[in-house]
Amino acid sequence: MPSREVTVAILGASGAVGEQLLRNLEARNFPVKELRPLASKRSAGKTIQFRGEDIVIREATPEAFEGVDIALFSAGGGVSKTFAPEAVKRGAVVVDNTNAFRMDPNVPLVVPEVNKDAIKNHQGIIANPNCSTIQMVVALKPLYDRFGFDRVIVSTYQAVSGSGAKAMTELQEQSQAILDGREPNKEVMPVGALDKHYPIAFNAIPQCDVAEENGYTLEEMKMVRETKKIFSDNRIGLTATCVRVPVLRGHSESLYVELNKDFDIEEIRQALREGEGIILEDDVASQVYPMPQTATGRDEVFVGRVRRDTINPRGLNMWVVSDNLLKGAATNTVQIAEYLI
Amino acid sequence: MPSREVTVAILGASGAVGEQLLRNLEARNFPVKELRPLASKRSAGKTIQFRGEDIVIREATPEAFEGVDIALFSAGGGVSKTFAPEAVKRGAVVVDNTNAFRMDPNVPLVVPEVNKDAIKNHQGIIANPNCSTIQMVVALKPLYDRFGFDRVIVSTYQAVSGSGAKAMTELQEQSQAILDGREPNKEVMPVGALDKHYPIAFNAIPQCDVAEENGYTLEEMKMVRETKKIFSDNRIGLTATCVRVPVLRGHSESLYVELNKDFDIEEIRQALREGEGIILEDDVASQVYPMPQTATGRDEVFVGRVRRDTINPRGLNMWVVSDNLLKGAATNTVQIAEYLI
Repeated sequence: MPSREVTVAILGASGAVGEQLLRNLEARNFPVKELRPLASKRSAGKTIQFRGEDIVIREATPEAFEGVDIALFSAGGGVSKTFAPEAVKRGAVVVDNTNAFRMDPNVPLVVPEVNKDAIKNHQGIIANPNCSTIQMVVALKPLYDRFGFDRVIVSTYQAVSGSGAKAMTELQEQSQAILDGREPNKEVMPVGALDKHYPIAFNAIPQCDVAEENGYTLEEMKMVRETKKIFSDNRIGLTATCVRVPVLRGHSESLYVELNKDFDIEEIRQALREGEGIILEDDVASQVYPMPQTATGRDEVFVGRVRRDTINPRGLNMWVVSDNLLKGAATNTVQIAEYLI
Repeated sequence: MPSREVTVAILGASGAVGEQLLRNLEARNFPVKELRPLASKRSAGKTIQFRGEDIVIREATPEAFEGVDIALFSAGGGVSKTFAPEAVKRGAVVVDNTNAFRMDPNVPLVVPEVNKDAIKNHQGIIANPNCSTIQMVVALKPLYDRFGFDRVIVSTYQAVSGSGAKAMTELQEQSQAILDGREPNKEVMPVGALDKHYPIAFNAIPQCDVAEENGYTLEEMKMVRETKKIFSDNRIGLTATCVRVPVLRGHSESLYVELNKDFDIEEIRQALREGEGIILEDDVASQVYPMPQTATGRDEVFVGRVRRDTINPRGLNMWVVSDNLLKGAATNTVQIAEYLI
């Protein structure tokens, strides 16, 4: 049980993840003495609900972090870069949900089920990994511990909420337009800041972030780099294809892993069943497997379709689904905050 | 140019693929002397349009194949098993679009871009591969010829039209229900004949056919078996994860291939660019890549996101999209028929 009550700031309180952070703090009965919702000037003045009370969102300024113990950041990488040092200077510990500090060697990158011990090395900032990385490493952890691996091939099926509340509205409006035979508006997908926009409704877009020079997208390279850092193991090789699909909430991943030891498929299932934060839903003969709609609103990582590669006896396929706004963002952030108190 | 005009029967003329077969025969100016649309008793009496004329669908009976030169079958495996021998007995050559005869050693399994020479060994029946296999082998063919491979890992993003016209209606109705806040009806997806049905709208279902005993689905094992047969190469190892996504038309595939020779990525692009039936759309920096919505209504296989594995220098990732009702079904069927005349 927590030993003290703390003042918690939420930066990005009006966003899709911000909303889930509030619900998660409530649901997990986090010992909040004062909740301080912060956002850009544009959203300041709006109210959010927390434990039945309306609280007015304040504009994020350096001074707004005075007296804050824990600051949960989820308002974009640029905003984090500006305000995280200000919050730390005023004594807060920042749990940052953006890409701003994830690969900074002085910042622990934490998924508690995998590397909670890294939390204690923080110097004021702890980073929350990318949503698609988090659910994957939770599923891989029990296999890493018992069998080891240095090779992972992953293809993702990512929900639009990974791009925020606007993207969710866009998918809904585009779906309605296409059902009505109208031309859909395109403003957010695949990447708001880029030039070209494509409809995501009834489509699949093989781009979840900006392109890097090697032909991969940043989202794909995040999975490569973050996985090595979270496991503290640079031998882990990973190659990723990240794809946006017309799903509102819940990322799915088709994972292929080459294990370092021989295995019996029942040993794999048992390891997953005992894995922290994992629910095994694995019986395709009875049509039992994880899906985004059944994972929505839940904190765990769901694993199914577990089966041996038809070629390599040490190869393993599985299907991993989790709510990207919860375990992929808010839940993982609040779990880290719990370890801080 | 074709040397003769032929009588063509279409079994399953009222279905999603049947409709595309008609449009394809028109568009490719196939030398049809007489078009004979056939279907079950239930659909007999309806009319279809061909070259501006209304033609009444007849009930499929053994006698309905009298005088038919080429019979295009797309009405389910059971129907094919009943009527293919009857059609052959009456002198027709059957191009079958179901799973009924694909693995029969006496039946060529043909994708013309890969193995058109197999057509001449037919004994009355030629099988059209599964939609997800066809587009994959077209994309793999130039790499097979120039570099060789014996290892493929594929994850699919399959459109609902692979399950027919009813599934397309279901996705549309479910989407509207969810947008309206109503409970969606579930009758077709993931597999009509099975007990459990899940919404496909705003969801992803990791099951495209019935389960086999090894934990794979039939759809996944079709890709494994058919690929070996089409390339006449049992050394090709393939492992597949087949997933249904809320897309109406156009299957996408995330393909990982381990080539047998070193390569320069530009050589790969050049090979694909020159590959038969392939259009290369590969420039992620300019947001150019294949998508189901841009592939819909087109006969080719679209390839993009071509990039070297970040681990294995002989590993290659690519993204392959094609219209499953066209190249994945009707176009491939009509191409085979063209080689017959």
